[in-house]
Amino acid sequence: MKIVTANEFKLDREVDYGTPEQNEAVRTIIAAVRSEGDGALRRLSKEFDGVDLQELRVSEAEIEAAYDHVDAEFIEALRQAAANIRAFHEKQKRVSWMDLQDNGSLLGQIIRPLQRVGLYVPGGKAAYPSSVLMNAIPALVAGVPEIVMVTPPATAGEEGINPHILVAAAEAGVREIYRVGGAQAVAALAYGTESIRAADKIVGPGNIYVALAKRAVFGVVDIDMIAGPTDIVVLADEAADPEFIAADLLAQAEHDELSPAILVTPSRTLAQQVRSEVERQLSLLPRKAIAAVSVAEKGAIVVVADLDEGIRVVNAIAPEHTELLVADPFAVLPRIENAGAIFLGAYSPEPVGDYFAGPNHVLPTNGTARFSSPLNVDDFIKKSSVISYSKEALLANGRQIMTLARNEGLEGHARAIEVRLQKEGK
Amino acid sequence: MKIVTANEFKLDREVDYGTPEQNEAVRTIIAAVRSEGDGALRRLSKEFDGVDLQELRVSEAEIEAAYDHVDAEFIEALRQAAANIRAFHEKQKRVSWMDLQDNGSLLGQIIRPLQRVGLYVPGGKAAYPSSVLMNAIPALVAGVPEIVMVTPPATAGEEGINPHILVAAAEAGVREIYRVGGAQAVAALAYGTESIRAADKIVGPGNIYVALAKRAVFGVVDIDMIAGPTDIVVLADEAADPEFIAADLLAQAEHDELSPAILVTPSRTLAQQVRSEVERQLSLLPRKAIAAVSVAEKGAIVVVADLDEGIRVVNAIAPEHTELLVADPFAVLPRIENAGAIFLGAYSPEPVGDYFAGPNHVLPTNGTARFSSPLNVDDFIKKSSVISYSKEALLANGRQIMTLARNEGLEGHARAIEVRLQKEGK
Repeated sequence: MKIVTANEFKLDREVDYGTPEQNEAVRTIIAAVRSEGDGALRRLSKEFDGVDLQELRVSEAEIEAAYDHVDAEFIEALRQAAANIRAFHEKQKRVSWMDLQDNGSLLGQIIRPLQRVGLYVPGGKAAYPSSVLMNAIPALVAGVPEIVMVTPPATAGEEGINPHILVAAAEAGVREIYRVGGAQAVAALAYGTESIRAADKIVGPGNIYVALAKRAVFGVVDIDMIAGPTDIVVLADEAADPEFIAADLLAQAEHDELSPAILVTPSRTLAQQVRSEVERQLSLLPRKAIAAVSVAEKGAIVVVADLDEGIRVVNAIAPEHTELLVADPFAVLPRIENAGAIFLGAYSPEPVGDYFAGPNHVLPTNGTARFSSPLNVDDFIKKSSVISYSKEALLANGRQIMTLARNEGLEGHARAIEVRLQKEGK
Repeated sequence: MKIVTANEFKLDREVDYGTPEQNEAVRTIIAAVRSEGDGALRRLSKEFDGVDLQELRVSEAEIEAAYDHVDAEFIEALRQAAANIRAFHEKQKRVSWMDLQDNGSLLGQIIRPLQRVGLYVPGGKAAYPSSVLMNAIPALVAGVPEIVMVTPPATAGEEGINPHILVAAAEAGVREIYRVGGAQAVAALAYGTESIRAADKIVGPGNIYVALAKRAVFGVVDIDMIAGPTDIVVLADEAADPEFIAADLLAQAEHDELSPAILVTPSRTLAQQVRSEVERQLSLLPRKAIAAVSVAEKGAIVVVADLDEGIRVVNAIAPEHTELLVADPFAVLPRIENAGAIFLGAYSPEPVGDYFAGPNHVLPTNGTARFSSPLNVDDFIKKSSVISYSKEALLANGRQIMTLARNEGLEGHARAIEVRLQKEGK
């Protein structure tokens, strides 16, 4: 793991827009689903997942049977996690409001849940039950009445869905599940087919084809942010435990060869300790092949002059996950401007947030914490403005409105006011 | 204006993704700005706006001088509108929170304004001072410290900016303004040049090149929704005034030949009265050439069986603007599920909201009110989750977290917990 100064450190980030071939493939898939519906879903599932789908929808019986294939310890932990996630997101709920004006007018803002949300869940090795909870629960807390999940079969050539995914869905409260994945599933959620009605928004992670499909249908439906590689920055001082830090960096690095895991510290001693400790722990890690690449190519230990410079480095990176392993993390917290989630102190390693504590693990990656937020209840609501002007208010302000409309050359706008003033003899 | 039943009515909507040529042009422009910076901005301004730009930035002197070119009545109306917009958006502000858990842990959500927001303002005939207020004020209310405006010169071949735009910017509180437009201005805001530092988010309307450029840089920066043609639906019963309705429909139709202006009513008598009245008023409208096309091609009067069916039609359209010209609009309001802004009663014509009342006029078009919202203060903030677990909490729940991590095959995640439990002798 390289040790560098703040000046030497540079994190290259590019948004993956896919190759022209990938984009063309996605356009073709979307067009096929739009024109052929379920037929295209079956044909593409055969082509990409090697499976002849009978029923697209996962039956209640299959969902119930999934419980026989997961152990009790998993279910218990999942239920506690779901309860924590629910409790945290309940605090994000908002209410509609109306404001009575002095002139008898009412202005307000109505908050409503979206009607139907589509949740994409990857299959294969990247099938994460925790992601099912993290994506579904905020929507349910928002009051979304229809949540529909799409996910490809777990194993090439077979219809079955990963039972842990089905149990997580059932525990969250999702019962409408289709065994289809890839760009074709995104297209189905955006445009609808005979079997799968269109949704208003699509959330959830996926491979490059899923990401490109989401980008392509953005505007027809809403989408969540397009995720880049996951990252972590640990800001630590000399008192921090190098063993903890190394473990936390590796927990990030094991995700993906492109995942940056970065330590920022004013202590050169700690930097060297962590470097040794990363090497030691890495050699014992089942996913060491992946983690070794990300540590070597994307990881870094940035030795800074002091904590102030360290905070500047953190804010410039805008990490998805930020750990504050410093003597007084609450003194540093107000100065962290860009971060998806902030973990304070020695007993808040990032996996606490990934799985359990309650805040969402769907976080802004790739530096987008500069402008975006953890997935939250607001992502599943819509607002409507309400304007009820009184006659008194329109008579008092009508001329000013007409002045502004005429200045913009929109005489029709002015006349919509004028016709009312005239009727009142003004 | 055609009169149809609810069954006959169909509103075709497509998102404009541009032609391949337009997309290619935008890609080329973005690449040029990324590699050549200001040089590309000058070259492209010469090419598209016919102007040799000297200073890219509009000087304080030019902003001050703009006040000499607008009349006092305009400034007074603009100031009142700005005060109303500020007051409404102040009510949308939110606060950070922290929640103390029983086990000594803290969970919370921090709200911060974005650091730097770019505001695109079209030039030429579509230069709307009201849009400057509507885009800038929510950002300012959110606490955004840096708002940068880009706008092309008002007249081809000249450097000057429309003085009404400059006055609106100054009144809103925007002083950093660059005389550049088009896809090149969007690219500058996304990637930065020598003169224009990159922003975190780009908002504001523009032509197809601006829209495609925003779509292309989405992810590098955030963007607001990509706007389609503006639309209105008036839901009216037999007591409504056909003169008012016709004027309101035409206020929408005059915007754009693609703008749907739709009346939904259970009264066939009203339908016929409004049709006649639209014809009469249309003939007197300065922008009748535009409005005549939109009324004929996109407009419709939908005669429904009753108010219930009318409400279903409104929700299916998901209008940008919805007027409720019915006997008891507040009884209908709770049943309007999809709408950007809802105007209640005879004295709330849509231009009241366009210019003056306070709610935002940047609204979800093209049916996107199903999943998106009026521009608001939330669009200019970012959230960070905060997790501070106590030792007690980690010891109590660590095993459950490890169970969930191991189920997903992420042993490194489990070990970040385990290393802490072991140090505590657990």
